[in-house]
Amino acid sequence: MDLISFRDLSKEDVEDYFARAEEMDRQLEAGNVEKLDGIVATMFFEPSTRTKLSFQSAAERLGLQIVDFVGSSSSLKKGESFEDTIRTVDGYADIIVIRHPLEGSARVASEFAEAPIANGGDGGNQHPSQTLLDLYTLKKMKGDIGALNVHLVGDLKHARTMRSLLYGLGMFGAKVKLVAPSGLEMARDAIADVKRKFEMEVEETETIDFKDADVVYVCRIQEERFEDKYEAMSVKKKFTIKPEYLQGVKEDMIILHPLPKIDEIPPEVDKSKYAKYFEQAKNGIPMRMGIMKKMLGSARQKKG
Amino acid sequence: MDLISFRDLSKEDVEDYFARAEEMDRQLEAGNVEKLDGIVATMFFEPSTRTKLSFQSAAERLGLQIVDFVGSSSSLKKGESFEDTIRTVDGYADIIVIRHPLEGSARVASEFAEAPIANGGDGGNQHPSQTLLDLYTLKKMKGDIGALNVHLVGDLKHARTMRSLLYGLGMFGAKVKLVAPSGLEMARDAIADVKRKFEMEVEETETIDFKDADVVYVCRIQEERFEDKYEAMSVKKKFTIKPEYLQGVKEDMIILHPLPKIDEIPPEVDKSKYAKYFEQAKNGIPMRMGIMKKMLGSARQKKG
Amino acid sequence: MDLISFRDLSKEDVEDYFARAEEMDRQLEAGNVEKLDGIVATMFFEPSTRTKLSFQSAAERLGLQIVDFVGSSSSLKKGESFEDTIRTVDGYADIIVIRHPLEGSARVASEFAEAPIANGGDGGNQHPSQTLLDLYTLKKMKGDIGALNVHLVGDLKHARTMRSLLYGLGMFGAKVKLVAPSGLEMARDAIADVKRKFEMEVEETETIDFKDADVVYVCRIQEERFEDKYEAMSVKKKFTIKPEYLQGVKEDMIILHPLPKIDEIPPEVDKSKYAKYFEQAKNGIPMRMGIMKKMLGSARQKKG
Repeated sequence: MDLISFRDLSKEDVEDYFARAEEMDRQLEAGNVEKLDGIVATMFFEPSTRTKLSFQSAAERLGLQIVDFVGSSSSLKKGESFEDTIRTVDGYADIIVIRHPLEGSARVASEFAEAPIANGGDGGNQHPSQTLLDLYTLKKMKGDIGALNVHLVGDLKHARTMRSLLYGLGMFGAKVKLVAPSGLEMARDAIADVKRKFEMEVEETETIDFKDADVVYVCRIQEERFEDKYEAMSVKKKFTIKPEYLQGVKEDMIILHPLPKIDEIPPEVDKSKYAKYFEQAKNGIPMRMGIMKKMLGSARQKKG
Repeated sequence: MDLISFRDLSKEDVEDYFARAEEMDRQLEAGNVEKLDGIVATMFFEPSTRTKLSFQSAAERLGLQIVDFVGSSSSLKKGESFEDTIRTVDGYADIIVIRHPLEGSARVASEFAEAPIANGGDGGNQHPSQTLLDLYTLKKMKGDIGALNVHLVGDLKHARTMRSLLYGLGMFGAKVKLVAPSGLEMARDAIADVKRKFEMEVEETETIDFKDADVVYVCRIQEERFEDKYEAMSVKKKFTIKPEYLQGVKEDMIILHPLPKIDEIPPEVDKSKYAKYFEQAKNGIPMRMGIMKKMLGSARQKKG
Repeated sequence: MDLISFRDLSKEDVEDYFARAEEMDRQLEAGNVEKLDGIVATMFFEPSTRTKLSFQSAAERLGLQIVDFVGSSSSLKKGESFEDTIRTVDGYADIIVIRHPLEGSARVASEFAEAPIANGGDGGNQHPSQTLLDLYTLKKMKGDIGALNVHLVGDLKHARTMRSLLYGLGMFGAKVKLVAPSGLEMARDAIADVKRKFEMEVEETETIDFKDADVVYVCRIQEERFEDKYEAMSVKKKFTIKPEYLQGVKEDMIILHPLPKIDEIPPEVDKSKYAKYFEQAKNGIPMRMGIMKKMLGSARQKKG
């Protein structure tokens, strides 16, 4: 069992991951995690502290061991093919977590490896464990995802996780408002796809107004996406989550963010009761524990 | 419970650390270390092989797991704040060991993290586990620290650990001779402070004469501290621990050094019976095991 | 017990390593590896993903912990001697795996360390665990090494492992054909040595003809070894293992390679039933588990 793309998952699959993460949360809370035996290889061809540490920490909570394949000081430099590298690491590990700047690389890796592959991000494409932990955070903090009104805010054109998140929200019947600056809107086909597939309510706007939001999910706007530096400054300023944006919002509204954040959320908002992104990040641990435990179970069936 | 500065510790605290290190030594000797469960994050924002490996090895002896946050390939590059980085890693670990070039950084980290923080060196300021292992080495090798005559030798102005060590020696009532070249003496206020606080006997001299020493603690003199290169050469030559300096010293005198050393101790002295710095370095293992075990105990109480 | 050079081993020693690797294979197969307690330090002064991951993975399968000394960000930069570095790491570990560009460095390390040293490659000299896993692969796949006809193919002058492999094949009475381009032949004295010592049949040729081969062991030809770039191209082309070379070979012939490979084996051959190098690489796990288990056993005897 690989985890390559969120799009490969049915609603039942996602709910199974929720149940697994909940079980892991229970075991963590009780300080009594059932230990497994196995080796997880982390192969990060581009830096991602957060994803790597989260997978490593989750593996260690399960009693798994880690070998870290460091892309830059490796055989790849000597000209070895991606296929050979994957096949070699496959011989040393029971699970491979891969992050690679090329779209589709995790899928390619899964063709060469016997070990289950967890996609830790392939270019601007997929980052399924992030989407799962985002949805799990909504379920854990708010209960019924289908009853939520979620604002996705920022550069929805480039942000890796936003398309998958939209898809996941559609799966559970949430209402979504896409709040993006002109030129950085989410791709038309992605919106059309979820509307058709889930008969989903999707509103698009450039105007920030969080009053009806249960969840505000913020992602960063990068200056370098604009040709006109003056426009960039003005858009960035508008899409910074200023304290006044929080006036009149629902009492239990929550702000999420995939992290790392730079200056899109100022310190005052950071310290507000709405800010939940560090708890969100922590949910990566039980979710990734659940993912890897499922992988080891399926690997065992496969091999023996 | 954090370990940020040696100055935060009472004599009772230090004696408690001694007792814990002794217990760890007993368990190591018996090949029967009681295993704990937890994750230690090492966050080294500047290189320090020795401190990092020592903490990692100590953690592993206790059965703890390690996640290594590598500063250079991290989110910090993308502009993330120190606070956010600490808060994120805090979500992945039960203890954080931090080394950072900025004075006070470990204290700052402790404000953002729920996990206990062990300061592995913050600039030229504090390195408390080093001071603890130095004092533990004295107790283990010589018994009563209060009965010792200790020479601190070298660049006492810049050496990170010397002020704390002086303070610790004062705490236990040792007699200290500060042997430094002109211009590299220990800061006046540090000396005044221990004299007042512990009614301590502190002698200052430029002259090397180890005949009355029970312990000679050497630290390096760096050429780059001098404007006049000729003077630098001459001072470095004088403060190299030549074999003739050892004529007439006490039979059981010991030479310590925080390591790494370069050329301040020549091979003949290295091979002498007085040289005890590698045993000193080894004492970092039981001391750091004791520190982390204490931290996990207190963390458990804190969290419930 | 160190493992520095294959030449230090008797046939009985090698057979003991085979038996240990077989036992490890049995335990891995049964999913029931007897766990040991201890720390392995990996000290790689030059990159070698494969060897490092293989040792780390083998250690983890045994339940051992790892501390990774990273040469480049270390005290060596500050001018510390090799001896001091080894002595320090020795204080933190029960086994040291070292790879260093300088010939003889592993032997030197073994003089300063109390912990057993495993040589993971010292310059162009020795890489004994590779030779052991190569021979173990032959035994496992083919049974009686003495009955084999082995072709060693490629740059036999510079390839690290080829001399030791020739020696090992001689030890077991195999028949060997050395197939190298002119100018890249194996050193005369190495051939004379095995002929004398084992009364070994060694044929030398520039002509590729695998029809009588049981085993074809390929190593890479590096362009930079030639002064004449045109000659380099022509020789590289000839020593690429083209599909037509496999016409008429024995049904159960196997192709081995120490990996990483670049372009010396084209995809068609890669996919053929003869290609066994990834299985060969996997045999590094049980062999290195056996090596480290033996080391820990002997260390325990040594220390008390």
